[in-house]
Amino acid sequence: MKSEVTTVPARRGKAVRVPEGGRIKLINTQGSQVVDTWAFNADHLGEFMSTEHSRSCLEKLIPGIGDSLYTNRRRPILTIVEDTSPGVHDLLLSACDTERYRLLGHVGYHDNCADNLRTALAELGLEPPEIPSPWNVFERVAITHGGRLEIQPPPVKAGDYLLLRAEMAVVVVFSACPMDLVLTNGPDRAPKAVQYEVLPP
Amino acid sequence: MKSEVTTVPARRGKAVRVPEGGRIKLINTQGSQVVDTWAFNADHLGEFMSTEHSRSCLEKLIPGIGDSLYTNRRRPILTIVEDTSPGVHDLLLSACDTERYRLLGHVGYHDNCADNLRTALAELGLEPPEIPSPWNVFERVAITHGGRLEIQPPPVKAGDYLLLRAEMAVVVVFSACPMDLVLTNGPDRAPKAVQYEVLPP
Repeated sequence: MKSEVTTVPARRGKAVRVPEGGRIKLINTQGSQVVDTWAFNADHLGEFMSTEHSRSCLEKLIPGIGDSLYTNRRRPILTIVEDTSPGVHDLLLSACDTERYRLLGHVGYHDNCADNLRTALAELGLEPPEIPSPWNVFERVAITHGGRLEIQPPPVKAGDYLLLRAEMAVVVVFSACPMDLVLTNGPDRAPKAVQYEVLPP
Repeated sequence: MKSEVTTVPARRGKAVRVPEGGRIKLINTQGSQVVDTWAFNADHLGEFMSTEHSRSCLEKLIPGIGDSLYTNRRRPILTIVEDTSPGVHDLLLSACDTERYRLLGHVGYHDNCADNLRTALAELGLEPPEIPSPWNVFERVAITHGGRLEIQPPPVKAGDYLLLRAEMAVVVVFSACPMDLVLTNGPDRAPKAVQYEVLPP
């Protein structure tokens, strides 16, 4: 496998196959950009990375270096090998979708992570069995008084990266979150491109 | 509609239809019992109560009295009308399933909430499109140092109840959680029956 850096354009998604034991490096090229991330068992898309099973298996809100994310069958699917960011990656919030933007007052179509997942998989000839709860890599969601959830700017600088190892043959989907109405992608509310690189086993 | 109290036997699940505007009272008959709860749009099971969309819409970890739970289309599906328990209802952990018990060291089949969901819906001639992340009513999951999650005994006494209003025609599924290996259902680790009552609009 030739390793090369691929760009996920701002507001868009990309799906990529990673073999078992392969690694994928997700680079926050310009900093302060959230990347909604999904992973599916390449042989059976009905098995996928699950936020609730990851929390249950890890007994943690947020996985750290050395931790795996788990599938809806409680099998490790991705493991965090390196992380140069502060390691704040939300597992609580849903992917943005057309309804999210409508509720925020946006009129007309808005790019969104749920559609990016569908489109990215379609480019590989695949269809998601559902829209799993995403792993919102680089997203900071603070738990404040009384269990309130507050989206805060990502504490992530340009060039920070997350290196993941595939624990089975997977299809990984990254969506450079197109949110431009709240602080998800920083105080400038400017969605930016990110990059990834697949490294062989 | 005649109102009557139905028992969900210990370790089992039950599905029930509730019309729009109807209410359903879930009674913790003997106390200290967790009830994994799901709700599906009765006209389209692909729309269902979603923990991640509920957290996103409410901007809260745990809904309180007056709050609605939301579907994967960000529409209110159930609203908490009354709650005599301390109001601790986990939205973070996955439903127990055969794999959960295997990982805990159990050998052979063990009743579990995921299968209870399937069986309960099958009794109405229905099939779940997936196993949604459950609303673990009466379950206490503490967030401790460094974001660790700790299952603690439910702070719920016999007779405590939760009264919910259906915001659309729904199929509600309750599973009296069969967990008997960890503290989910209290220090005696004894799964117990619960009851529910459907009240007309």
